[in-house]
Amino acid sequence: MEKKRILTGDRPTGKLHIGHLMGSLLNRVKLQDEYEQFVLVANVQALTDNFDNPGKVRESIYELLCDYYAVGIDFEKTTVFIQSEVKQIHEIFVYLSNFVTIQQIGHNPTIKTELAQKGMEQSTPLGFFMYPVHQVADILSVNADLVPVGKDQLPMIESTRDLARKFNTTYDVEVLHEPEALVGVEKNVPGIDGNEKMGKSLNNAIYLADDEKILREKVFKVYTDPNRIRATDPGTVEGNIAFAYHDLFNSNREEVLSLKEKYRKGTVGDVEVKEKLFIAMNSVLAPIREKRMEAEKIKEELMSKALEGSKKVSNEAEKIVNKMKSAMKINFYEK
Amino acid sequence: MEKKRILTGDRPTGKLHIGHLMGSLLNRVKLQDEYEQFVLVANVQALTDNFDNPGKVRESIYELLCDYYAVGIDFEKTTVFIQSEVKQIHEIFVYLSNFVTIQQIGHNPTIKTELAQKGMEQSTPLGFFMYPVHQVADILSVNADLVPVGKDQLPMIESTRDLARKFNTTYDVEVLHEPEALVGVEKNVPGIDGNEKMGKSLNNAIYLADDEKILREKVFKVYTDPNRIRATDPGTVEGNIAFAYHDLFNSNREEVLSLKEKYRKGTVGDVEVKEKLFIAMNSVLAPIREKRMEAEKIKEELMSKALEGSKKVSNEAEKIVNKMKSAMKINFYEK
Repeated sequence: MEKKRILTGDRPTGKLHIGHLMGSLLNRVKLQDEYEQFVLVANVQALTDNFDNPGKVRESIYELLCDYYAVGIDFEKTTVFIQSEVKQIHEIFVYLSNFVTIQQIGHNPTIKTELAQKGMEQSTPLGFFMYPVHQVADILSVNADLVPVGKDQLPMIESTRDLARKFNTTYDVEVLHEPEALVGVEKNVPGIDGNEKMGKSLNNAIYLADDEKILREKVFKVYTDPNRIRATDPGTVEGNIAFAYHDLFNSNREEVLSLKEKYRKGTVGDVEVKEKLFIAMNSVLAPIREKRMEAEKIKEELMSKALEGSKKVSNEAEKIVNKMKSAMKINFYEK
Repeated sequence: MEKKRILTGDRPTGKLHIGHLMGSLLNRVKLQDEYEQFVLVANVQALTDNFDNPGKVRESIYELLCDYYAVGIDFEKTTVFIQSEVKQIHEIFVYLSNFVTIQQIGHNPTIKTELAQKGMEQSTPLGFFMYPVHQVADILSVNADLVPVGKDQLPMIESTRDLARKFNTTYDVEVLHEPEALVGVEKNVPGIDGNEKMGKSLNNAIYLADDEKILREKVFKVYTDPNRIRATDPGTVEGNIAFAYHDLFNSNREEVLSLKEKYRKGTVGDVEVKEKLFIAMNSVLAPIREKRMEAEKIKEELMSKALEGSKKVSNEAEKIVNKMKSAMKINFYEK
C-alpha cells in the first residue's frame, strides 16, 4: 500500500524555538517514517510581509534547514523543498483564484486578525491579502492527503477542500485532491514570560540554537508564581511556566510530581525547581544543539538537498498543472 | 541598433471584427517590420471571467490565430505567444503583488467600471480582481519598450511603470524595464447600430470571418440618418455609420466626398450609399476572408508556431525572473 502524503512547512522568518520543537518538529521526525512527508520552506509567503527585508528571509532559510537537521528530520526520508523553486505553485494559485472571491478572503478571521495586528487594514498589499489562497496551492501542488494543523488553522484546510471541490465540479473532473486535517498532534508551548504564545517578536522564546549559557539564563528568567515571595511560601503550579516546561521536558515524572507537591507546600525554592528544569531541558536540547552545530558546517549540502527536493516537487506539481490545464482545455500538448 | 520591443495582445473570447482590424491588427502588420513585436494570446486572463466556459476560450484561441494570419501578421516576424504556456508570468505577478495594495486596485476606474458592468461588486472573483496586476506582469515578462494602447488604457501603462520602479527601488537594482505607451495609432470603429463601440456582446459587429452574404446584410443594416424618410430628403453625414465606414474603408476619396455632398442635398439614396460601401468594404475584407479560409486549414501549424513563440518568451521571461530572484536574494543557483 502506498504511504499517504503529508505536507507541513514553515515561513523562513527567523530561527525555530522550543515552541516549534514541541508543536511540529518532533512530530515530523515521527511522521517521516509513517508517511511520505513534504516540508515546505515558504519563502515566497515570507516575502509578502518581509519583501523589503529579503536578506532576513534568505538567512532564515539556512536557519530552518539547520534546525530541521538538528531535530532529526532526515532529508532522505522527508522531501524538504523551497517554495520559490516551484513555479507551478504560482500557476495553480492563479487558476484557483477564479474560484474564490475577495469578499470571502476579507471575511476570513485569520486574515482579519493579521491585518489588524500589522496595521494593514487601510493599505493591504495584494501579496499578503492573497496568501491564504496561495497556501491552498501549496497543499494541492503535492496532492497532500494530510496536513497537520492547529485548531485555529482548520478553516484553511476547509478552504483547500472547498477550492479543490469547486475546481473539480466546474470542470467535471477528479483532478485536485481534497486533503484532511491532522489535528491534535501539537503541544502548545507558552513563552518564558507566561504569554500563551512563544514568538520571536514577543522576545520570550528559547531557540534551538541557544547555547547552554543562554538556556540557563532564560530558564532562570522563566515566569513562576508572582505571589510567592519566599521559598517557604506555598506556591501555585498552574500557570507556572517552570512547571509547564517540566511537564514538557522532564522525563523523570516522579521528580516532577514531587517538585509540584513541595512547591505547593512551600518546601522547595524557585532556584531548585529551575535548576532541575535547566538540567531536564538541557538534556533534550544539548544533542539538538550539537547536531545543529554540525548542520551549520554542512548547510550548503542541506541547501542542495532542498533544491533537489524542490525539483522533485516541481515535477510532481507539473503533472497536476497539466491535469488542471486539460480540464480547462488549455493543455495544447495533450494527445 | 537593436529593434525596440513592442507588446500587444488580445483576450481569446471570440472572433475579431473590423473594430480590431482598424484598432490594432493593421497596425501590428506595420509595426512588425519596425519593431521586435510580441503578440500575447491572453487566455489565462480570458478564463478569469469565462472560467466556467473553457471551451469558448479554447475555440477562440484558434479563431485569433486565424484572424492574425488573415490580416497579414507574419508568425516569423511577430512572436505570437500563449499566456498559459509562460509560467514565468504568474511568477512575476506573485512577486509584484507585494508592491500594490488591494485598495489601489479597488480604486482603479477600469476595474470599478468592469465590476459594475458584470455585476461583480458584491462577489468579485480574486482572479478577476487581480488581473490588472497580472497584465503588468505580461508587459514586464518580455521587457517591452512600447505598448500600443488606447487613451483609456494609459493608467495601465502608468501602473506598469510604477510597479517596475517600486521593485527596482526597493532592491536597488535595474531589473524591470519601464515601458512607454504608444498612443494614437488606433482608429475607433463604431458598431453597425451606431453604438460608439463594436462588440460581440453588443451584437453590432462585422467579423473578419463573415462571408460576403453576411457582410452585405450587415452593411445594409448599418445605422444612417434616422430622420431621413425619402432619398430626396437632405440627410446628415455626421454620426451616420455608413459614412463613418466609408471614411475608414473607401480608398476612393473623391467618391466619398461626392456621396457626402449628394447625401446632404438629398440627391442620393441610402441604397446607393450602402451598395458602394459594401463594394469598398468587400474589397478590403475579401482578401482577408480568403486568407482566413486558408488559415483554417493550417490552424494546427499556426498553433505550433504560437507554442514555439511561447517557448521563446518563456526563456526570455526566465531571465527576468532570475534577475528578480537575485534581487530578492532567492536565486539559489547564482554563483
